[in-house]
Amino acid sequence: MNYNTLNWSVSDSILTLTLNRPEQMNSFTVEMANELVDAFNRASVDDAVRAIVVTGAGKAFCAGMDLTRSGNVFGLDESQKPTLKDMAERQDDLAIHEGVRDTGGRVTLSIFNCTKPVIAAINGAAVGIGATMICAMDFRLASEKARIGFVFGKIGITPEACSTWFLPRIVGIEQALEWNYSADIFDAEEAKRGGLVRAVVAPDQLLPEAYKLARRFVDNKSPVGIALTRQMMYRNSAQPHPMDAHKVDSLAIFYASQQDGKEGVKSFLEKRAPDFKAKVSSDMPSFYKDWAK
Amino acid sequence: MNYNTLNWSVSDSILTLTLNRPEQMNSFTVEMANELVDAFNRASVDDAVRAIVVTGAGKAFCAGMDLTRSGNVFGLDESQKPTLKDMAERQDDLAIHEGVRDTGGRVTLSIFNCTKPVIAAINGAAVGIGATMICAMDFRLASEKARIGFVFGKIGITPEACSTWFLPRIVGIEQALEWNYSADIFDAEEAKRGGLVRAVVAPDQLLPEAYKLARRFVDNKSPVGIALTRQMMYRNSAQPHPMDAHKVDSLAIFYASQQDGKEGVKSFLEKRAPDFKAKVSSDMPSFYKDWAK
Amino acid sequence: MNYNTLNWSVSDSILTLTLNRPEQMNSFTVEMANELVDAFNRASVDDAVRAIVVTGAGKAFCAGMDLTRSGNVFGLDESQKPTLKDMAERQDDLAIHEGVRDTGGRVTLSIFNCTKPVIAAINGAAVGIGATMICAMDFRLASEKARIGFVFGKIGITPEACSTWFLPRIVGIEQALEWNYSADIFDAEEAKRGGLVRAVVAPDQLLPEAYKLARRFVDNKSPVGIALTRQMMYRNSAQPHPMDAHKVDSLAIFYASQQDGKEGVKSFLEKRAPDFKAKVSSDMPSFYKDWAK
Repeated sequence: MNYNTLNWSVSDSILTLTLNRPEQMNSFTVEMANELVDAFNRASVDDAVRAIVVTGAGKAFCAGMDLTRSGNVFGLDESQKPTLKDMAERQDDLAIHEGVRDTGGRVTLSIFNCTKPVIAAINGAAVGIGATMICAMDFRLASEKARIGFVFGKIGITPEACSTWFLPRIVGIEQALEWNYSADIFDAEEAKRGGLVRAVVAPDQLLPEAYKLARRFVDNKSPVGIALTRQMMYRNSAQPHPMDAHKVDSLAIFYASQQDGKEGVKSFLEKRAPDFKAKVSSDMPSFYKDWAK
Repeated sequence: MNYNTLNWSVSDSILTLTLNRPEQMNSFTVEMANELVDAFNRASVDDAVRAIVVTGAGKAFCAGMDLTRSGNVFGLDESQKPTLKDMAERQDDLAIHEGVRDTGGRVTLSIFNCTKPVIAAINGAAVGIGATMICAMDFRLASEKARIGFVFGKIGITPEACSTWFLPRIVGIEQALEWNYSADIFDAEEAKRGGLVRAVVAPDQLLPEAYKLARRFVDNKSPVGIALTRQMMYRNSAQPHPMDAHKVDSLAIFYASQQDGKEGVKSFLEKRAPDFKAKVSSDMPSFYKDWAK
Repeated sequence: MNYNTLNWSVSDSILTLTLNRPEQMNSFTVEMANELVDAFNRASVDDAVRAIVVTGAGKAFCAGMDLTRSGNVFGLDESQKPTLKDMAERQDDLAIHEGVRDTGGRVTLSIFNCTKPVIAAINGAAVGIGATMICAMDFRLASEKARIGFVFGKIGITPEACSTWFLPRIVGIEQALEWNYSADIFDAEEAKRGGLVRAVVAPDQLLPEAYKLARRFVDNKSPVGIALTRQMMYRNSAQPHPMDAHKVDSLAIFYASQQDGKEGVKSFLEKRAPDFKAKVSSDMPSFYKDWAK
């Protein structure tokens, strides 16, 4: 892929997606948002990609919205007063899409919809959208040099990028409120104590650890099985009743059992490694499209 | 009760339900699923049962689906392509019920609907449905010999038994994804670190500890009060707004106050143990049936 | 404010709300419920209040419902059998409002709807409604002398005050069930181990620590930004899909960016403290009323 703000690099089935504006501390622009959405959408259906590691070029992970350009982000005037109804009904109208819809949220929704495991390798400052973006990823590994901040309160604005949905689910409502109310920037150890990152490692161990983790989800695994598992975990766990999960679980295991599941059981009984054939690009079960829209 | 795959034994108001196919490591069959559903349904309305401990006979807790019989589980052909609509509208049609609906999910939904506290006493291997089944129970105690694995990914299939609803609520989405993506089998200590089990004990202390825990929920407690509490915690906490809880809380405390609550307050003011009379079999409040359907 | 059961005191923008029936261990009455609802509603729109600390006068925080008066709480007779439908449709009919609706829930719903950060400073016994009330607050600090108990099971009744919604979100379903099934009273250290309180401090450090925490959410913060953040965290995180958060996030950041956000960015670029002008009493964005009803 040829992106202006990102580097896309695939090796051994693992995509490394690098935020690549190191001179600007990888600060976030509308262009970067659009390229991230495109990259996660592509990675979702690219069978060469089986897991995704996201990191930053240079010293920072992502130092937040590029404030020198933030005027571009919101083209609508307040006099046009967008409403809840507009957000529901006119979401993809250009005026709403470009003028009102939070760009960070468009990125995290594309991560949410992604069919591959996503690992954040937080190499340095992850602030504002840099902090909220990682909340939509499955796993967060931090370098000792990472600094994280939900700093919206410092400039009188509100959390975005669906972090009001993701963050409390990861660290609980109390910790989410403390970090957002205070708008403080905190270090990797506090992020670990608070449950936001799973481990803090030396800077030179960050990518190796991320790849080691990704490897466990790639080798001898069914890509279709992993894709369904990811979507089922996020979507079903947020439903109001386990029956909602049951309906989808039942269809998923029904279809999987007749696809890679056949080779899975056969290889298990024959005590050999499986050779899964189903592809995310073409073999997602028929119920998937209706369900995960 | 006379079951082929289970042992049902009640002592001091505690039911011990033992998965009882020790020669086959208590592996799960359609017959076991049907018997478990029946057992949880019966226990729900049997006033002699006030709490339930689930364990396995012999070395294993439950070694997963009996793969030699898995052909039986899914009778429908893919050409009949079951849809989300079928799952919503034809859930109890025989073709869907027996051909598509996940048997593990039918079991965990019966646990979800149960009116008594449920404690898993994990004596050994709890793998596949053996691992997901315990996620629907209220408490999980593990023997040092327990080994747990959400191993579906090893055979190219997906998590089931509503574990996509229960597991992330217990251990968080990140840990749920790691265990399911990797499909690894892990020991009791990792289960404790990850928040899946509350304690790891010596094998000969497992049942005594489970009974000690159950005792606290039986002695001097109102069975109707406990039943309502259980259903309210699971159901209300998953609703999108606390007002949903308020409506049910209000009705529950209104009815309870005129039932066992009268004796409760009286005994409290008289500084003596209460003598609660209300029965789950006949005295659940009138709103319950509509609500917990 | 002149309340009979509460003390209202504002200093340095922090409201201390003290449950003030020390002779009765601050036990809860209908009058106290009504005064708490009034106090949280007023604090919500009083620009002089930027954060709220709730504590108890004397030895106790709140020793639960005043059982000598509990007859007053439920005026309806069981023969009138209130239903789920009544709770949905007749919620504010006087017979339902005063006869059936849980008074504790009316209080916690007013806390839920509050636009200011709320900190519980638990100075002593917090039992029954004293325990469930704190679950709706953002932060819980405990004195070493605090004793907490979800004791409803002792008198044969059920949890209330929307604690079936709040508590499992704070401590997980297993811990919530254990404390409610057992109805035990536990100390501050167990509350901390279980995740209910963030810290245990010496009695004379309780209010200073609470004020220190509150300070971080007041100084140099936008009251409108904080109000939106609070409501977005609680409400969005409970929705079934991140898209629900995205719609609200987008509107919130759109409006905030044109209000305090302008001064926020300006002050940030000029490396000075911000001077936010927007008021909760008059400047909440236009979508807010429809959304947070």
